Amino acid sequence: MPIAISLPRLKSHVDALSRFGRNPDGRGITRSCWSPVHEEARAWLIARMKEAGLETWVDPAGNTFGRLGNGGPAVMTGSHIDTVPEGGPLDGALGVLSGLECLHTIKEAGHTTRLPLTLAAWSDEEGRYGSLFGSRAFTGKLEPAAIPRMAAADGERLVDAMARAGFKAVDAPKAKCDPKAISAYVELHIEQGPHLDAARIPIGVVEGIVGIRRYRLHFLGEPDHAGTTPMAWRKDAFLGAAEYALKGREHVVKKGSGRSVTNFGRIELSPGVSNIVPAKALLLQEIRELDRKILARLDRECLAMARAIARRRGLRLVVEPLSRTEPARCAPRVMEAVVAACQELRLKHKQMPSGAGHDAQNLAAVTSAGMLFIPSKGGRSHRPDESSDWRAIERGANALLHTLLRLAG
Amino acid sequence: MPIAISLPRLKSHVDALSRFGRNPDGRGITRSCWSPVHEEARAWLIARMKEAGLETWVDPAGNTFGRLGNGGPAVMTGSHIDTVPEGGPLDGALGVLSGLECLHTIKEAGHTTRLPLTLAAWSDEEGRYGSLFGSRAFTGKLEPAAIPRMAAADGERLVDAMARAGFKAVDAPKAKCDPKAISAYVELHIEQGPHLDAARIPIGVVEGIVGIRRYRLHFLGEPDHAGTTPMAWRKDAFLGAAEYALKGREHVVKKGSGRSVTNFGRIELSPGVSNIVPAKALLLQEIRELDRKILARLDRECLAMARAIARRRGLRLVVEPLSRTEPARCAPRVMEAVVAACQELRLKHKQMPSGAGHDAQNLAAVTSAGMLFIPSKGGRSHRPDESSDWRAIERGANALLHTLLRLAG
Repeated sequence: MPIAISLPRLKSHVDALSRFGRNPDGRGITRSCWSPVHEEARAWLIARMKEAGLETWVDPAGNTFGRLGNGGPAVMTGSHIDTVPEGGPLDGALGVLSGLECLHTIKEAGHTTRLPLTLAAWSDEEGRYGSLFGSRAFTGKLEPAAIPRMAAADGERLVDAMARAGFKAVDAPKAKCDPKAISAYVELHIEQGPHLDAARIPIGVVEGIVGIRRYRLHFLGEPDHAGTTPMAWRKDAFLGAAEYALKGREHVVKKGSGRSVTNFGRIELSPGVSNIVPAKALLLQEIRELDRKILARLDRECLAMARAIARRRGLRLVVEPLSRTEPARCAPRVMEAVVAACQELRLKHKQMPSGAGHDAQNLAAVTSAGMLFIPSKGGRSHRPDESSDWRAIERGANALLHTLLRLAG
Repeated sequence: MPIAISLPRLKSHVDALSRFGRNPDGRGITRSCWSPVHEEARAWLIARMKEAGLETWVDPAGNTFGRLGNGGPAVMTGSHIDTVPEGGPLDGALGVLSGLECLHTIKEAGHTTRLPLTLAAWSDEEGRYGSLFGSRAFTGKLEPAAIPRMAAADGERLVDAMARAGFKAVDAPKAKCDPKAISAYVELHIEQGPHLDAARIPIGVVEGIVGIRRYRLHFLGEPDHAGTTPMAWRKDAFLGAAEYALKGREHVVKKGSGRSVTNFGRIELSPGVSNIVPAKALLLQEIRELDRKILARLDRECLAMARAIARRRGLRLVVEPLSRTEPARCAPRVMEAVVAACQELRLKHKQMPSGAGHDAQNLAAVTSAGMLFIPSKGGRSHRPDESSDWRAIERGANALLHTLLRLAG
């Protein structure tokens, strides 16, 4: 019998953590980073780490760590304990608590690994103030000059939120790690998509995390009277944006990798009234793809298409780039460890990209990084009914345990 | 030499009225009904009416009147002195001041008409609180129960705005006229479209005012994760709305009267963020057409098309009707008087529909109503650079003068 985690203990921890920030009336969990409930959850987590026999600390970026063992570069695992507004109980939380359960199990079993094991709960993965904030700071990607400007959509500044939680935001870049002190990073997460659930496969071996291009396309026309201007004379910014959205979507589907995706999540028209032809349409687009070259090509082709459509319709087009992350490939060594763990536990597994961003993509810049996914029921996440079977959770946590044991030797 | 208006006096009045509510930095004129500057403009107008020898009064809906002569049903003319936010100097104002100039000219000339002449400045034509409010009240179309709920887009209630100006909103329906006391109504207005300016024709003889259908289409899909949900699985409400807007526009252009128009002035997506597939798209549509049967058919066919597109894309569609006005035909007797006046003055003229709503459409329900248009430079209106040549204005005011003389006998 291979060594195995305790599902009752893991379940009790998932249930306990889900009570921090739970909203009434089934509206899920709201546990934004630095909020009072998040800080209570952090204190609870540190107590659980100590209970598991880990040495704990918090870095200047608010990343919370628990360490088992000494000497040599650490094998790290973890995820995050913040949530989106009205989110579910598993996104992030399951990676942290499964990692805790693995280290607790190893400690209890009296098992000693060659390399130390470190559990991390990264700050603000969901990006209320800045996407993947904690892991960016830890991997040296946090621009100090940007910190004073970082703010939530509701205007709350990061510096104020961190101060309230007892942190100095300007100190966050000091969290930067020494890459030589890290041997590998592996993160367990719910898939947040439907593939594993639909195929009834318990483990997804993540081959990489997609790169994302985000821009705001400004289609610019004329604010003509919608009753008196002949249809053929109008320079309707909305219809230009609508035509582009439909054709841009088809282009990404047909000319991408087959797994390329795009979304138009927001559009704003101005002046935005019934009886005036839209003079401006601001269209938010993102494109995601695992292959760096295909992503760059889709980006280029879509913008050329948008320009051609605008030109044909007598509109101007202004492209405002918003963000740009490159795809991160998972380390073959970590993927092989996950596959070997699955084979040992006789778990079916499938190689797949991650369509969502994760802290692992930042860790990939400083160490051998990888991830394993477990099925999300119906592919649902970031919503109150996000869930996974407890048996699936147990399989995933055991796969993580044996992956860590392989990586730490 | 036919009797003629004084362009210098009309010009001085247009310039004087344009100073009430003029914004700094070339941002046009903002003179919303019931606002302090609107009430100052009303007082100024009443003083000019008295100066012209008219008997003046204001009715419970805030409509301002000036009368010349007695006995028999009145021939009415007029327009409005309120503006859209950041509007121009002519929309509405020119109709009121040209009417004033006509009555002043007739009075000065010592000319006596068989029927009395009445000038009207209708309240809130632009509809800050309710479109065509004053003429609706005057023609008995104002629903008393709706008054307490009437409010501006910024939330200010009509009852408060009217109280501030010294009026009781609940009394507005008392403005209802006795149709037997009115013989005809004729209104001069800038075209607000490009046809007359492009064709260099000085007078448009309005044959009718288009009917308008307005509705909000709710396309309803699913808020899936935009990174992890396969493209083929998505139920994207925005793409459904975009496809409908493009095809609905084509349908109105190809299957309408040739003058039918439609506009999609606003769309709102929710949740409205980059990384979530739009679950809701609220699309505002209006359709305008002069022929009642064609308007009803386009309305029906467009909604059927929207339903079919929604169904094919796995979306639900909810149609929320917002408003519905039927086309108003101008009275042949008034159109003939305008044409005869043009012939007398040797002015080229052209029959045309009005694509914009006007108080004349309400008057058409109680009397023989008509309109004449003068060219708008570049078809521009509802904006600071709205303008017409002074020679075009003079021609229009003289055409109005001779139309009134013909109608009042």
